[in-house]
Amino acid sequence: MEQIFGGIEAGGTKFVCAVGTGPQDIHAQTTFATTSPQETMEQTVDFFRQQSERYGSLLSLGVASFGPLDPSPGSPTYGYITSTPKPGWANFDFVGALSSAFDIPVVFDTDVNGAALGEYRWGAAQGLDTFIYLTIGTGIGGGGLINGKMMHGLIHPEMGHIPLPHDWQADPFAGGCPYHGDCLEGLANGPAMEQRWGQRAETLPQDHPAWDLEAHYLALGLVNFICTLSPQRIIMGGGVMQQPQLFPLIRQKVLKGLNGYVQSSLITQHIDEYIVPPGLGSRAGVLGAFALAELAAQSGIG
Amino acid sequence: MEQIFGGIEAGGTKFVCAVGTGPQDIHAQTTFATTSPQETMEQTVDFFRQQSERYGSLLSLGVASFGPLDPSPGSPTYGYITSTPKPGWANFDFVGALSSAFDIPVVFDTDVNGAALGEYRWGAAQGLDTFIYLTIGTGIGGGGLINGKMMHGLIHPEMGHIPLPHDWQADPFAGGCPYHGDCLEGLANGPAMEQRWGQRAETLPQDHPAWDLEAHYLALGLVNFICTLSPQRIIMGGGVMQQPQLFPLIRQKVLKGLNGYVQSSLITQHIDEYIVPPGLGSRAGVLGAFALAELAAQSGIG
Repeated sequence: MEQIFGGIEAGGTKFVCAVGTGPQDIHAQTTFATTSPQETMEQTVDFFRQQSERYGSLLSLGVASFGPLDPSPGSPTYGYITSTPKPGWANFDFVGALSSAFDIPVVFDTDVNGAALGEYRWGAAQGLDTFIYLTIGTGIGGGGLINGKMMHGLIHPEMGHIPLPHDWQADPFAGGCPYHGDCLEGLANGPAMEQRWGQRAETLPQDHPAWDLEAHYLALGLVNFICTLSPQRIIMGGGVMQQPQLFPLIRQKVLKGLNGYVQSSLITQHIDEYIVPPGLGSRAGVLGAFALAELAAQSGIG
Repeated sequence: MEQIFGGIEAGGTKFVCAVGTGPQDIHAQTTFATTSPQETMEQTVDFFRQQSERYGSLLSLGVASFGPLDPSPGSPTYGYITSTPKPGWANFDFVGALSSAFDIPVVFDTDVNGAALGEYRWGAAQGLDTFIYLTIGTGIGGGGLINGKMMHGLIHPEMGHIPLPHDWQADPFAGGCPYHGDCLEGLANGPAMEQRWGQRAETLPQDHPAWDLEAHYLALGLVNFICTLSPQRIIMGGGVMQQPQLFPLIRQKVLKGLNGYVQSSLITQHIDEYIVPPGLGSRAGVLGAFALAELAAQSGIG
């Protein structure tokens, strides 16, 4: 029997589980709502048990998860979701639950680090060693590879929570982050758009001023990340980025914000290739989980 | 004869050149003003020629330089200062000038990456793989190691130029950055303090409100870097940080800014060990140049 990977895109709203080897080869996939950890993990384990019976034992499992979480293999809480407000999930031992069901290596990382690794392996970041992947949706998060390795450090980045300039006269909305009010996520995630404009973001027409303001905040975030990290490319995914009018607005505002200071022709001449959507589209998450699984199989982490 | 390194701390105001092997063993050191590239490089080459006659050929040279610069060995402009407004230095081939005088490996990087490497080798970042070094002085810059390697990416970080919240009512000073006005550097470097308060920063008494405002902006910068990079430690050097009252103010404001979101005991319980001055004090720059030279000798880069 051929050897295949299992991947879990563990989101706060839904789980996507799949088995396969890469973008051209997904054998089976299922999606279900994220409810309690017990119920959600039962569905997860059931799916991979069924697939193992069909295709033989999986080589490894990759988990690209919502957080905050502990991705450090040496830590006593490695593999845990840590301080999430999501009921039942705080201090949940995600890797432990999988390891007690399957005797195969498991790699566990943030959804955005997983998506970044998937983009590196098969998508818009092939051949790069330093780039970031941002998701703009219900939350805002960022991950990436620096010097060819996934970003961890003390814990893992929380790029959505950077403080930003906020012109209260132009935009009196206070921001919706329970921790920081008007951080990037508080000003620019999907729920912030809905609260500010009184309707769901996807129902706002393309020429509504909401999109210019949204691009303004996202561009401020990108200028921050460019100055701090000097990425070779920025990939932007997530529900809010499904709006095609956002990319040109963001690119134009990033150029204005940097004002020629970072002198790279990739930015000044080719910004269309510098700030891009995911090469894997909406499959970046689950394919990222495959890429994590591949890493587990290669390195024997688990 | 023993084999020793040469180190150049190339600042916009002064050059410090030294030969030796580490913090306990600096054989000779000289300091002179940064004038034209021709004159400055002549003095540099003269110093190292004299030291080579005395101690034998140097093993390698490390250069920790002001920028922006090109630190990518594969690039056609590797070793150049690039877009500096400093007269005569834009597009100056720094490594070329050294290599035509000395047939030894040269490693060339930013002053802050050099200082970070020195702190990793002998100072406050020993044993860490992901941390940043910030300098707060005439300019504001940052570098560091991520996953054990110096930060480069597209070019190199320009951490001083991140956009920040600016309460114009509380602080009507517009900011002094010629590119961005009120970016971190524009609001919080030494010249910004002098312009805002009408006297040089070092002449302001310790209880002057200037220091609280300065700590406010620096803490906003640190919250940004913590969310974006998740460093294991932040080292803050440079002239402005010579003011001992700043560290406690900054630490307190960083805790307030993060508001418990990043749940690491190193931040929540031990912030005195998380935000620290350089272990090498004011010698971080020149010892960082030694650390770069050591790297050149090890890797054969040059």
